[in-house]
Amino acid sequence: MSDLISKLQWRYATKKMNPAKVVPQEKVDRILEAVRLTASSSGLQPYEVFVVTNKDVREKIKPIAWNQEQITDCSHLLVFAAWDNYTAERINMMFDLVNEQRGFKSEGWENYRQMLLSTYVPRDAEVNYQHAARQAYIGLGTALIAAAEEQVDATPMEGFDPKALDEILNLKERGLRSVVIVPLGYRADEGDWLVSLQKVRRDRDNFVTDVK
Amino acid sequence: MSDLISKLQWRYATKKMNPAKVVPQEKVDRILEAVRLTASSSGLQPYEVFVVTNKDVREKIKPIAWNQEQITDCSHLLVFAAWDNYTAERINMMFDLVNEQRGFKSEGWENYRQMLLSTYVPRDAEVNYQHAARQAYIGLGTALIAAAEEQVDATPMEGFDPKALDEILNLKERGLRSVVIVPLGYRADEGDWLVSLQKVRRDRDNFVTDVK
Repeated sequence: MSDLISKLQWRYATKKMNPAKVVPQEKVDRILEAVRLTASSSGLQPYEVFVVTNKDVREKIKPIAWNQEQITDCSHLLVFAAWDNYTAERINMMFDLVNEQRGFKSEGWENYRQMLLSTYVPRDAEVNYQHAARQAYIGLGTALIAAAEEQVDATPMEGFDPKALDEILNLKERGLRSVVIVPLGYRADEGDWLVSLQKVRRDRDNFVTDVK
Repeated sequence: MSDLISKLQWRYATKKMNPAKVVPQEKVDRILEAVRLTASSSGLQPYEVFVVTNKDVREKIKPIAWNQEQITDCSHLLVFAAWDNYTAERINMMFDLVNEQRGFKSEGWENYRQMLLSTYVPRDAEVNYQHAARQAYIGLGTALIAAAEEQVDATPMEGFDPKALDEILNLKERGLRSVVIVPLGYRADEGDWLVSLQKVRRDRDNFVTDVK
């Protein structure tokens, strides 16, 4: 079995976390570093990650997220927030950063910049947001694997009111919209109905088609 | 540095693959197994993966994907195809599978099934497809990490005509829509403009916000 497969077998959407246990900051930092390094379309990284440790803020988030207790029982709540639109400023920011860090400009890369500017910027903001939100899900998948590598429990959650969360974190002013949240913490010794249950997935034949 | 971070540092969107090198089937199988095991919303796995090795089919796909050569130079082309809608049949299929594999029914789980049926099934098909497509991006992120673990090169691609690809693979008849494709193969010794260039990401301060 590969390392990755054993990590994926180990992880599960933790239903009850131990509020007394805190994830060490260096583990959180490695999880965030994995998300920062993971792939995104054209390398734009069109989302940001908020790490909410503040107890009052998490108490405010809980009722707009079906009162899921992991939000306050975890030690770190990750909020993935996607760009609400692709703007020329955002696209140019990333292309300029690439040129700056690589130390040169190339015609091919500049043509690609113009192609993205002419395709993305005039497009409907909602279409652009949906595209950005998909990239955040690459980050989400990466965060879940990174947490498992650190033996940290995590619960990916879509069950919250995104507009209310955007207000709590002032995301609208920053041109961001919340996409998915992930409490990080440690499973409780008792009270997690899912921890001992088998992970169920469709078998390969119902998931993969070989076109030979 | 964690294992995962070094894998993410190693990988890049390979621009030129060596058509003479074939990824061993056991490596492809481990990559697919990681995707099969990764997380998805409510565990529905609302997508499938096509593994296209057939040369003629890949020759047909290339022109509807900007003639990107990795499509025919790779040895295995992964196509992630999401459910075009959430139907009662599909939701029940996954809930029944869970009950069957775990060997019992629970009231909480059955209530959750009813909640999904009453929320997802009446919802607009496009909204449901977009939700399913996001889950495929968790699979995509997982596949890229799994490929890196196997030292297999991969190129995530959104640049293709999804409707044309759906026709080539007869996805519509199966209630699927193509989302993203990933050639798997090995980088060529020459001709890859990206291989030697620095990976560029925004620094932590421009990507992560701590809410303490």
